[in-house]
Amino acid sequence: MEKLVLLPGPVMVHEDVLLRSAKQVMNHRSEEFEEVLRECLELSRYVFQTEGEVAIITGSGTAGMEAAVYSLVEPGEEVVAVVNGKFGERFADIAERRGAEVIRVEFEWGEAADPERVEEALADSDAEVVTMVHCETSTTVLNPVEEVARVCREYDVIFVVDAISSLGGAEFRMDDWGVDVCVTGSQKVLGCPPGLALVAVNDRALERMEERESGSYYLDLPKYLRFLKEDPMQTPYTPAVNEFYALLEALRRLKKEGLENRWERCRELQRVVREGIRALGLELFVEDDEIASPTVTGVVYPDGVDDREFRGLLRDKYDVVVAGGQDHLAGKIFRIGHMGEVRVRDMVTAVTCVGLAMRELGVDVDVGAAAEAMADAIGG
Amino acid sequence: MEKLVLLPGPVMVHEDVLLRSAKQVMNHRSEEFEEVLRECLELSRYVFQTEGEVAIITGSGTAGMEAAVYSLVEPGEEVVAVVNGKFGERFADIAERRGAEVIRVEFEWGEAADPERVEEALADSDAEVVTMVHCETSTTVLNPVEEVARVCREYDVIFVVDAISSLGGAEFRMDDWGVDVCVTGSQKVLGCPPGLALVAVNDRALERMEERESGSYYLDLPKYLRFLKEDPMQTPYTPAVNEFYALLEALRRLKKEGLENRWERCRELQRVVREGIRALGLELFVEDDEIASPTVTGVVYPDGVDDREFRGLLRDKYDVVVAGGQDHLAGKIFRIGHMGEVRVRDMVTAVTCVGLAMRELGVDVDVGAAAEAMADAIGG
Repeated sequence: MEKLVLLPGPVMVHEDVLLRSAKQVMNHRSEEFEEVLRECLELSRYVFQTEGEVAIITGSGTAGMEAAVYSLVEPGEEVVAVVNGKFGERFADIAERRGAEVIRVEFEWGEAADPERVEEALADSDAEVVTMVHCETSTTVLNPVEEVARVCREYDVIFVVDAISSLGGAEFRMDDWGVDVCVTGSQKVLGCPPGLALVAVNDRALERMEERESGSYYLDLPKYLRFLKEDPMQTPYTPAVNEFYALLEALRRLKKEGLENRWERCRELQRVVREGIRALGLELFVEDDEIASPTVTGVVYPDGVDDREFRGLLRDKYDVVVAGGQDHLAGKIFRIGHMGEVRVRDMVTAVTCVGLAMRELGVDVDVGAAAEAMADAIGG
Repeated sequence: MEKLVLLPGPVMVHEDVLLRSAKQVMNHRSEEFEEVLRECLELSRYVFQTEGEVAIITGSGTAGMEAAVYSLVEPGEEVVAVVNGKFGERFADIAERRGAEVIRVEFEWGEAADPERVEEALADSDAEVVTMVHCETSTTVLNPVEEVARVCREYDVIFVVDAISSLGGAEFRMDDWGVDVCVTGSQKVLGCPPGLALVAVNDRALERMEERESGSYYLDLPKYLRFLKEDPMQTPYTPAVNEFYALLEALRRLKKEGLENRWERCRELQRVVREGIRALGLELFVEDDEIASPTVTGVVYPDGVDDREFRGLLRDKYDVVVAGGQDHLAGKIFRIGHMGEVRVRDMVTAVTCVGLAMRELGVDVDVGAAAEAMADAIGG
C-alpha cells in the first residue's frame, strides 16, 4: 500500500475485505445471496444495537439520509433539523427538497448541539420528526444523541440520526437511547469500500412510514424492509452484490474485535492524535475533549500555511493523505480520520509526519514533545 | 468458477475486472480519482455513442431511471410511458411517484412497441417527455428506439431510454438516433459487478432539467454534471470507488473488443441460443427474430414443467444458472442472458444442459438436433 489514507471516509480497507469483494458475482435473488444478506443484517443489528430492521441500500450515505427523510415526511409537514455543520445542513436540505417546512436549530460550526434548544423548537412547532448528525464529520464534533433522544421521547416525535461517520467507532445504543431511525455508510468505521448505506428502523418509525407514500421510488424504505420478508430474502433492486461480500467480511471482523473494543480503540487513537497535535504546538478545531468525535480530529492551520500546499507535501513526500476542511472551513482546518482498521502506529505516523511537513513549511512545531505526549497517551 | 451464471444481469465478471475492484480505496476528491473518472466518462461516451455528458451514480439501474425522471418532470406534468413489460411499467411507476400525469401506451408482454401508437399519444396530449425501455428484460423484446426517437424529434419532446440490459450489446446510437437521455447499469453488457448506474444526457435534456428542480436530492442529475466541472472532477456524493476501478477495466476491455464487434458477438450468441432452443423442440417466448433482444432469450416452459424444479436441477446438477420469469410470466418462461463476457462455449453449454435437464423431467427434447443447429448457427 503506497499511501496511508486517513480520511474521515472512505477509509483504507483490510485486504481480507477487499479480496472478498473480488469474489464472482452471484444471483441476487437466490438462497445463496440470502445467506449473505441475512448475516449482514444480523451483524448490522449488533452494530446499531437494535432489535429493529435494517435496510441496506446500494448508494452513498446521502442516499440513506434521503431514504429516511423521504419515507417519513410528506410535503408541507414540519421537520426540526439540528444544524451545526455540513451534514446537519444536508439533512435540512433533503427535507426542503422533499417539500417539508424545515425548522433549523442552528449552532456555530465546532459547537455541539444543545438539547434544550431542540426542546424549545419542539415546544414551538408541530414537527413530528427531528434530524441530527451524531459525528458531524465537517467539524469533528460528536453531538449528544442520547440527550436529544430523551427530548424526542418526551415529545413523542421520531428521531432520525446520521451516524455515518461514527457508528461502530463511538458509543451508540439505538434501542436503549430511543433513536428511531439511524443511517450509516459502509466506508467509515465499518471499514468497507464505499457503496452501501445501512438504515436501521424501529417499529415506531416504520408505522409512520407505512402511513405515508415515500417521495422516492428507489429510496422507498418500507419497500426494502418488505423485500426482507420475501422467500428468498432480497433487496427490491439489484444490489451491489460484491459490496455485500465485503460488508459481511468487515462486519465479521468488527464482531470478532467486539463493538465496545472498537469504541475503545477509536477513543485511544483519538487521545494519541489530540495529545500529539497539542504537543506539536498546533491548535485543535474542537478544543473541548468532551464534544470531540472519537473517529475524526480537526486541526486548525497556523497563519500562513496553505491547505493545498500542506496536504500536497504530506501526500507526496510523506505518503500520508488527510482531508481538508469543507465549505467555509476549507483552507482553515485539516482533518485526520481515525476510524475503521486504523491502528496506533498510523496515528503516530500521522502526527509525526504532520509535524515534519509543518516544520518544512516554516511552522515552529515540537516533534519531540509530540512523540513524548503520544507515548503517554498510548494505553493511558 | 463453480456456476455458469447466465442471468440477464448481474453477469459473470472477468477476473481482471474483479481483481481491479479489489485495489485499495483512494480519496474520491483527488486528482488520482479524477483520472479514473475522466477515462470512465470518455469510454462511456463511446459506448452510448454520444458527445453529451454522462453521470455515473452509485446505485442500481433503477436509481438511474429515477434520476432521469425526477430531474426532467415536475408534479402535474404529463409523461408518455411506453409499457410492454416490467421495466416499461417501472418507468411509469417512477413518474407517478414523482406526481406526474402518466399516459401509458401499452402493448402485450412479448410484443414490441409500435411507434405509431406513441405518435397518437403525443398528438393527443401535452406530454413533453416520453419514456421507453430498449431491451425489455422481462420479455426479452428489443423495442424500436430509432423509430420512436424519430417520432419524439417530430414532436420536439424529450426521449428517455432505459438501455440497462442492452447498451453495448445491441446497436444503439444515442446522438444519431436523437435519444435525449439514456440510462444503463454496470452489471449487464458492460460486464461489471452491480452498483453503478450510468446516465447520458444531451444538451436539450440538460436545458430542460435546469429549468426544473429535481424531485430528489441524491438523484439530482444536473448536480452530477456540475460536479464534473469541479477541480478535481468529482461526484457530488461519495462514489463506490472500487466499482469505478472495475468499470474502467471493463470499459477498456469493451473498447479493445470494439463496440460493433460486441454487438455482433451478442447477435451470434443469440442465434446459437435461438436455433439450439428451437431444435430442442422448445418454444421461444418471442418467436419473431426481428424483435428479439440480442442480450437475453426467453424460453416457454412446456406443460407440466415446474420453474423451481427445473432451474434447481439445472443449477445443482449442471451448474448452470438462468433466470425465471417476472410478474405474470413467473413460472411460464425462463430466461438465458447472453451479455457481457459470455462466449459461444457458454451458449452451447447452456442449451445442451437445458436439454438434458428437460429430458430428465420427462420432456421430449432433441439434444442431437440442437447440437447440429448450433453448429450451423455458429459464425453463420
